Amino acid sequence: MTQRVRMGMVGGGPGAFIGEVHRLAADIAGGIELVSGAFSRDAEASRAFGAELGLSPARACGSWAELFEAERALPEDERMQCVSIVTPNDSHADISCAALAAGFHVICDKPAAGVLEDALRMQQAVTDSGRLFGLTHTYTGYPMVIEARERIAAGELGEIRRVAVSYLQDWLSREEDTQGSKQASWRNDPARAGESGAFADIGSHAFNLVEFMTGRRVARLAAQLRSVIDGRVIDDDGGALFELDNGAAGMISASQVCTGAINALRIEIYGSEASLHWFQEEPNRMSLKRRGEPEQVLRPGAGVPYLSEPALAVCRTPGGHPEGYIEAFANLYQAFAADVRAFPAAPAQPRGYATIEDGVAAMRFIRAARLSSEADSAWTALDGVENAAR
Amino acid sequence: MTQRVRMGMVGGGPGAFIGEVHRLAADIAGGIELVSGAFSRDAEASRAFGAELGLSPARACGSWAELFEAERALPEDERMQCVSIVTPNDSHADISCAALAAGFHVICDKPAAGVLEDALRMQQAVTDSGRLFGLTHTYTGYPMVIEARERIAAGELGEIRRVAVSYLQDWLSREEDTQGSKQASWRNDPARAGESGAFADIGSHAFNLVEFMTGRRVARLAAQLRSVIDGRVIDDDGGALFELDNGAAGMISASQVCTGAINALRIEIYGSEASLHWFQEEPNRMSLKRRGEPEQVLRPGAGVPYLSEPALAVCRTPGGHPEGYIEAFANLYQAFAADVRAFPAAPAQPRGYATIEDGVAAMRFIRAARLSSEADSAWTALDGVENAAR
Amino acid sequence: MTQRVRMGMVGGGPGAFIGEVHRLAADIAGGIELVSGAFSRDAEASRAFGAELGLSPARACGSWAELFEAERALPEDERMQCVSIVTPNDSHADISCAALAAGFHVICDKPAAGVLEDALRMQQAVTDSGRLFGLTHTYTGYPMVIEARERIAAGELGEIRRVAVSYLQDWLSREEDTQGSKQASWRNDPARAGESGAFADIGSHAFNLVEFMTGRRVARLAAQLRSVIDGRVIDDDGGALFELDNGAAGMISASQVCTGAINALRIEIYGSEASLHWFQEEPNRMSLKRRGEPEQVLRPGAGVPYLSEPALAVCRTPGGHPEGYIEAFANLYQAFAADVRAFPAAPAQPRGYATIEDGVAAMRFIRAARLSSEADSAWTALDGVENAAR
Amino acid sequence: MTQRVRMGMVGGGPGAFIGEVHRLAADIAGGIELVSGAFSRDAEASRAFGAELGLSPARACGSWAELFEAERALPEDERMQCVSIVTPNDSHADISCAALAAGFHVICDKPAAGVLEDALRMQQAVTDSGRLFGLTHTYTGYPMVIEARERIAAGELGEIRRVAVSYLQDWLSREEDTQGSKQASWRNDPARAGESGAFADIGSHAFNLVEFMTGRRVARLAAQLRSVIDGRVIDDDGGALFELDNGAAGMISASQVCTGAINALRIEIYGSEASLHWFQEEPNRMSLKRRGEPEQVLRPGAGVPYLSEPALAVCRTPGGHPEGYIEAFANLYQAFAADVRAFPAAPAQPRGYATIEDGVAAMRFIRAARLSSEADSAWTALDGVENAAR
Repeated sequence: MTQRVRMGMVGGGPGAFIGEVHRLAADIAGGIELVSGAFSRDAEASRAFGAELGLSPARACGSWAELFEAERALPEDERMQCVSIVTPNDSHADISCAALAAGFHVICDKPAAGVLEDALRMQQAVTDSGRLFGLTHTYTGYPMVIEARERIAAGELGEIRRVAVSYLQDWLSREEDTQGSKQASWRNDPARAGESGAFADIGSHAFNLVEFMTGRRVARLAAQLRSVIDGRVIDDDGGALFELDNGAAGMISASQVCTGAINALRIEIYGSEASLHWFQEEPNRMSLKRRGEPEQVLRPGAGVPYLSEPALAVCRTPGGHPEGYIEAFANLYQAFAADVRAFPAAPAQPRGYATIEDGVAAMRFIRAARLSSEADSAWTALDGVENAAR
Repeated sequence: MTQRVRMGMVGGGPGAFIGEVHRLAADIAGGIELVSGAFSRDAEASRAFGAELGLSPARACGSWAELFEAERALPEDERMQCVSIVTPNDSHADISCAALAAGFHVICDKPAAGVLEDALRMQQAVTDSGRLFGLTHTYTGYPMVIEARERIAAGELGEIRRVAVSYLQDWLSREEDTQGSKQASWRNDPARAGESGAFADIGSHAFNLVEFMTGRRVARLAAQLRSVIDGRVIDDDGGALFELDNGAAGMISASQVCTGAINALRIEIYGSEASLHWFQEEPNRMSLKRRGEPEQVLRPGAGVPYLSEPALAVCRTPGGHPEGYIEAFANLYQAFAADVRAFPAAPAQPRGYATIEDGVAAMRFIRAARLSSEADSAWTALDGVENAAR
Repeated sequence: MTQRVRMGMVGGGPGAFIGEVHRLAADIAGGIELVSGAFSRDAEASRAFGAELGLSPARACGSWAELFEAERALPEDERMQCVSIVTPNDSHADISCAALAAGFHVICDKPAAGVLEDALRMQQAVTDSGRLFGLTHTYTGYPMVIEARERIAAGELGEIRRVAVSYLQDWLSREEDTQGSKQASWRNDPARAGESGAFADIGSHAFNLVEFMTGRRVARLAAQLRSVIDGRVIDDDGGALFELDNGAAGMISASQVCTGAINALRIEIYGSEASLHWFQEEPNRMSLKRRGEPEQVLRPGAGVPYLSEPALAVCRTPGGHPEGYIEAFANLYQAFAADVRAFPAAPAQPRGYATIEDGVAAMRFIRAARLSSEADSAWTALDGVENAAR
Repeated sequence: MTQRVRMGMVGGGPGAFIGEVHRLAADIAGGIELVSGAFSRDAEASRAFGAELGLSPARACGSWAELFEAERALPEDERMQCVSIVTPNDSHADISCAALAAGFHVICDKPAAGVLEDALRMQQAVTDSGRLFGLTHTYTGYPMVIEARERIAAGELGEIRRVAVSYLQDWLSREEDTQGSKQASWRNDPARAGESGAFADIGSHAFNLVEFMTGRRVARLAAQLRSVIDGRVIDDDGGALFELDNGAAGMISASQVCTGAINALRIEIYGSEASLHWFQEEPNRMSLKRRGEPEQVLRPGAGVPYLSEPALAVCRTPGGHPEGYIEAFANLYQAFAADVRAFPAAPAQPRGYATIEDGVAAMRFIRAARLSSEADSAWTALDGVENAAR
């Protein structure tokens, strides 16, 4: 019988979309029990919301500091083992560092932090604490994305030559959108969103997907970030050329002003032997193309004979029963919970969720893109970008 | 704060795919607590499985009769309010009737029963008890299917003229499949599956989808059922012409021996003003076609301006974040739980799940198909088919 | 160097869509020269139109009788060798029989005739004359359709189990359409269109596609034809169950009142080993699906390694350079011209165009569908249907 | 009655794919007669090939110089009016300039020349001669591409913000391909292909498509060209960021080593009001997406009510009868022939084919890409790039 992992949550109060998704995902993952939370800075509101979620009043607090303290005071077998952090980007570092220092494992919404330096601080805290840290780069939870990683790692594509990835949306395509929702406004506030807008918010997903699927690191880039809408202070659109560490060429674009694009994350990876093609809005199909052969359309499903073990491990339903975004999210929680359960044994390999190293890499990508853009799109290495003048 | 509905389950023990899906669906629906169950005829096994699900030992039994008795003995505010029945078709009627008679609301896997007479018995039991009864015709839980119903009801397609629906699979396409899994074997046993194989198992879904989307009843049909694989005693493949009650023509096929079809439920509805096109394996898109106009591709998503209220009500995520089969299933549980919570107030309209009337209609469809097939595909009315010679 | 085939044309005057398509097709086929014609019953108009096409005035006549006589009077090496007949259905038989009797090969628009008896008369005339006869069932000229025939003939699908074919349009979906164009009005005139409307006009294409691809004959059917639009005297919509001569089941529908359907000819063929899926509006892709394997998407193109010789023989351009309807049409003319050139040597096998036998089969299909429909959809054999009471 | 335009051809002898396509296109266009040619440097071979095409022996020569001289000697009403040039890139300029000077209109395969300076020389010759000059950028002949241009010109997309275009192939993806075909070898010979490989060969098509559809000029770019395959002396793969003259951002890639890509020319244009999406391999559909509205799928077809006049003018068949690459090509010839016929009246506007100005722009694009790539991807303006150090 599976032991249930006790989890707390910071952020994600009433009306917060992403908090609700994290809870649903943990729910579907199974084997995770939400036991505590600091859902709101208003202690009363936090408690009320906790009650709605079925928490005991004592375990819903008005601040993460209180939460961590209260939980530490509990007997070890009642205390939360890990905490899910679903607050705005700029607060991830402080909360994560405190949680890790207090002995809790952390699963955190992406990107890791608002600025690279904070992510580096988190990386240090992970090392120092020896605790687990996961970032929810949702799209890597899809079975077809995992299948791509497995096939590329097994050499099925040969040497990677060219990657095209784009993540385009249109929900900030008009001037009035910035004033719009709670989500929109903090994303346009550099003090809270961090050093970038669209590139941090969704470009980081696209970047992570490239590294996850190819198993390679992005070495350098030449970027151009822009604020298309008047009054935007941070980028809402941008593109870059990039190179992988094997010399492969790539192009990435991320935009929240591309009219008609909904949540259009699309990737194509071309190797010397084959190419893979995947689109997030139709996640249950991935094309594999070889020269002079029919295109193959791969699909997920429990028991599908041509899929790899790791992809099969995240299929909940038989073929033809589509799974979606929430299940992909759940797969991250499932992998994280398994590692928590096994702790202090080493986490399973390959990791079923993004790590702080992945998070730091994404922050270096964002920093490098900004610096390159400010330097007339000069090629900029990701390694050591933290030492470049800001 | 939402009051949690207390639910029991009959069937769905370890390894039963559909039981697991029902539990996941109830989980995602939210506001439902699994409190009891008769998961297995082996009381010990049932208790062990219940424990894995977090149930108290007292509330996991070895038979549904015990379960209902034990629950009735509990105080009303602890007692389960409804029971989910996920056993083979032939047992639905006895269990449902007993549950209803004991005062429990029932949500039951489809088809309603093994034979039409049992479904009629259940219909009587629902009437007599005054309790709620829901059938989980999963595919009607998809947002796009609900959107189709709404648009057709609003007259957007004009007069319905022609319907094409097919539900094709290949998991029984070989002789050895019949001996295969637990699922395959009871489906091929007339004593347990009821009067039909493929037509009952998946044809009933296709039939229900037609009635659900069009808002019309199938009036009569001319069918041909077959057992393609040697040794099959019940149909594994079949097709029929049919007519709706407004005179529209239709074609339906259901097969489990169509090689390469995974879970291929596809429907096209043509009216005098427009047509709708939907495919279950890519559920997050539906085409609307008018003469001389560009095809429109509709997609779900919280807040999408062109969707109807009932469709929006079942969207958990913003546009471009695909939902799937489990969420569609959850939508049925969510609607059922809301009606349980409101009971004895009348259920919300239109019903968010199939009723016993829908279930009886599907059983009439299956009976009529079998009788027509035996009579050289003679046109056979669904109304009163229970009075025809079997 | 290829010898040019001299061709005449009956019908296809100014504004006649299908005549223009035949000429374009012959042009693209190459090696065919239009040398004469009876384009209009008005001799003057015919001559004027001939002049526009570059014909000498002496070789454009006001009637097919004159045309055939005039051509016979020419020396053999100037005289037209074959004639293309693109008149309304009811006139095909008289013109074809006269042309064959006069020693000309005939290529004729489909369906073969207005009524079955006429088609049988044509079949006799072909036999008696020993001349070549081709019917332009355009859709069998597509490379992917030929590829399907080859793969099925080679056993790649195993035993055929189920076929679904539909040909749906909407250009007659409104009452006013019948008065509409020249094309629409003769199609709704039983005296000119023959015994059926939609089933003859496009159902015959669907029927021919089934027989062409599967290499099997349709043995019997149970049909329902209807006139959906008030005032229609012949069917504008219909459907049927059918059986192939190996016992496989099938469903066919043909309609010109299905709103939003443009020229939607779609076919799916399921065998014991694999299935094939093709849609005329996207002709340059065909799916091949095997159980438990990725779907394969086949595409045409000169030199594509996985295509059969006969499919490659009709690819004019390399992969990725789409060909279309006119090229498919041209492929029929190309095959017919090659047979004319080789005459009196026997025509190449398999025939690259439909023969009078295929045409008679289609007429039997139409007759059987009408008779079945009039007999409450009773199963009706195609063989010998000409002997049934009309 | 349409007057037939008399055309000669330089190049395009036996086995030359593109010459055959040009002839087919002219054929389908209608109203064009091939009357003369210099198909091969071997006079005998040229004459033999001319005879196969039905030319009189006197009008097939062994060199273009002879051809132009011989044609000039003919009476004006027999003499060719225009000449189609389908030789390797490096010879376009000399032949075109001589043809124009001799008073012939020219229609030339793309790109305009091997190097920018040659294209500029051609531009001067066009101006000096006052004759017509057309470049066959095939893809601009597709109805949907023309529809895009019309809708963008009419403001339907609002202000253009971002463009993504890629043209990927795989026919040079292996080392052995360079030695392969005649086409492959001259394309890898800088002396014959000009200053670039993939960027000139197919990147120029992608570039032209952007300018054609958006009605804007590419102002500057930051490019990286590469030779992926060992032994290649010119680029076989490359990508660039670019900017339109209104400040819109763009990304372009062109590669002939992307395994699995056949002839994958894809473009997406995002404006403030809507976006358009088109893929050459499925040319008969184009998506139009607006924020918060259903995606619209536009399709070509004679008489389709929602299409613009210029798009309708190039539809040969009704909706649902797919046209392809050859018809697109024919549309260029048709527009060119109409202008020749009307000469010396001014050509129709907007031009139905690319002009020498478009050709020079493409050559500036290629030059700028090469220079930028050599300067570490520095932003490079297209205007005046001929004055930059080579």
